[in-house]
Amino acid sequence: MIDNPYYSHEFHGDYDLVSVGRLDLEEGGSIPDCQLAIATFGTLNEAKDNAILVTTWYSGSHQIFRDVYIGPDHALNPDKYFIVVINQIGGGLSTSPHNAAGANADIGMSRFPCIRIGDDVVAQERLLREHFGIETLQLVVGGSMGAQQTYEWMVRFPGKVRRAAPIAGTAQNTPHDFLYTKALVEAIISDPGFKDGEYSSNADVIDGLKRHAGIWAVMGFSTEFWKQEVWRALQFESKEAFMEGFLEPYFTAMDPNDLLCMAWKWQHGDVARHTGGDLAAALGRNEATTRILPINEDMFFPVRDHETEQALTPKSELRVIDDVLGHLGLFGVAPTYIGQVDQHLNELLATS
Amino acid sequence: MIDNPYYSHEFHGDYDLVSVGRLDLEEGGSIPDCQLAIATFGTLNEAKDNAILVTTWYSGSHQIFRDVYIGPDHALNPDKYFIVVINQIGGGLSTSPHNAAGANADIGMSRFPCIRIGDDVVAQERLLREHFGIETLQLVVGGSMGAQQTYEWMVRFPGKVRRAAPIAGTAQNTPHDFLYTKALVEAIISDPGFKDGEYSSNADVIDGLKRHAGIWAVMGFSTEFWKQEVWRALQFESKEAFMEGFLEPYFTAMDPNDLLCMAWKWQHGDVARHTGGDLAAALGRNEATTRILPINEDMFFPVRDHETEQALTPKSELRVIDDVLGHLGLFGVAPTYIGQVDQHLNELLATS
Repeated sequence: MIDNPYYSHEFHGDYDLVSVGRLDLEEGGSIPDCQLAIATFGTLNEAKDNAILVTTWYSGSHQIFRDVYIGPDHALNPDKYFIVVINQIGGGLSTSPHNAAGANADIGMSRFPCIRIGDDVVAQERLLREHFGIETLQLVVGGSMGAQQTYEWMVRFPGKVRRAAPIAGTAQNTPHDFLYTKALVEAIISDPGFKDGEYSSNADVIDGLKRHAGIWAVMGFSTEFWKQEVWRALQFESKEAFMEGFLEPYFTAMDPNDLLCMAWKWQHGDVARHTGGDLAAALGRNEATTRILPINEDMFFPVRDHETEQALTPKSELRVIDDVLGHLGLFGVAPTYIGQVDQHLNELLATS
Repeated sequence: MIDNPYYSHEFHGDYDLVSVGRLDLEEGGSIPDCQLAIATFGTLNEAKDNAILVTTWYSGSHQIFRDVYIGPDHALNPDKYFIVVINQIGGGLSTSPHNAAGANADIGMSRFPCIRIGDDVVAQERLLREHFGIETLQLVVGGSMGAQQTYEWMVRFPGKVRRAAPIAGTAQNTPHDFLYTKALVEAIISDPGFKDGEYSSNADVIDGLKRHAGIWAVMGFSTEFWKQEVWRALQFESKEAFMEGFLEPYFTAMDPNDLLCMAWKWQHGDVARHTGGDLAAALGRNEATTRILPINEDMFFPVRDHETEQALTPKSELRVIDDVLGHLGLFGVAPTYIGQVDQHLNELLATS
């Protein structure tokens, strides 16, 4: 276990840790005491039928949803819905390699087992049902790896999801994404300070984490983001200052093993494993009214990959978000971004 | 100096080393005895006005032009033209960090000076004039870094270039490309075996060179290349086999310092340094009839970046090459690729 102050209330505000008990894992092994960090907004009604689940992305937490996506002026309106953001396993706030202790002491650091998107979704369903008594969801929504979890909900628990909105992510990870994630992983594990996952502090792996940030810079934003110097809107004076003041500190604060846990999960995301590799059969299970929301400038979850899956998904429609930031448009930096998301989610939530 | 068998006639066939003497460099310092490796095809006519110059890309040599682009059935027809392919400085065949010896012994390995695209073009012009007596070129053509050199010819020696065809490359390197190249560089220099450029063999840096290949896999091909498993056309059975059997051996055979020399040059390519940063003024110098040839699936030299520069280039027209391989379509793997290039070059060569 490592004490990393980034994963704390100081940096992430209010959240609660809820145990779902022992979680047996798809790839074998288990998490003896799986704790999920959740943040809730609004009030669960008596019928317990006004809940929305928000899932998190690689390196993300509930924080960005609280700050950008959720509020009385947004589609994710806590005056109307009970919104539960569940931080993914391995993300640093929920049970993760760096914080495994107590009952989880045997799976700390390099011994943490491989986690699947499906493991997260099983744990989430259990939490919602056992902790809140929620049996159906008005909406499941998430971006990137959160979209992977959204698709997993659609395929695994079709009766429980009334509406779904995967943003900038796919049901079946693409080979290009696999290679991209591989490059991210190698940037970290090649750092001599990584010591096969048994470093004593994330600071030991700072060079690898910076290279990891450098690869995110190439793929996470669009070519046009850099050309138009959109980082100026964030009050930086050069792309170097933006890297040193934003993207590098963002990732170097994080735990390497936690990032690697998420990276493996991302690489292996595939709803078709439920149907013997038949993606059409898997997506065909969907019963939720669905809006599939790619970002037009996304370099690694391109629009056409969403189009392919949309064509296989019943009750779904495609709505393309225009954002020069590309994939990391998910951060909501562009003033025009959240309005588009709100419009699409409002339209979706207005369906019966 | 390192004896690397990859940079030899065994791997690259026929070529000649021609010295252009001492080359003073834009960034300061000089190459005491600058030798350029050239391969020629066809015969220079008496008027010495039937010459075509072909420039080379990052990690490339004359070999790919000999095997794919040049021949009696191609636009680059040695029955009609005298075609000179000049390997770039730092590329491993011409004077480069790994082979600097004799008069160049003081600039070997990590002591090799920074080379600009302009240094290459000055050396090329000198070689063509002094060695062959060539004063004007029917065509300058090259891809990627070869396109950078082509633009440099257009801006630096406008009276000498009758026609020009930059393929999949820009006159002014983009910030995104700078960051992409930075990630490539860091994959190499972070390898402990690199030893600040004083390794004893490229094999010492094999892990870094493999990571470098892994990042090329993400950006060099298109997302659709991987999704459609286009590597099957090259007789591989999996993307892993393609990496291990093609892209990794391709780069691990090369010299790290040579790659870094080219990477720095690529990063700093900018014809606007001739005009105080005014790109329009620089490109406005062009007198050559020009075809600008982006590849539609290129991830890091996207079509729109070519469009921007085309609009600033007199006598130029844009022709987009369709190739799912993306940037590395330049290798000519797709059977439909070279036909498109030939069509555009034939059209160009038919202009008066």
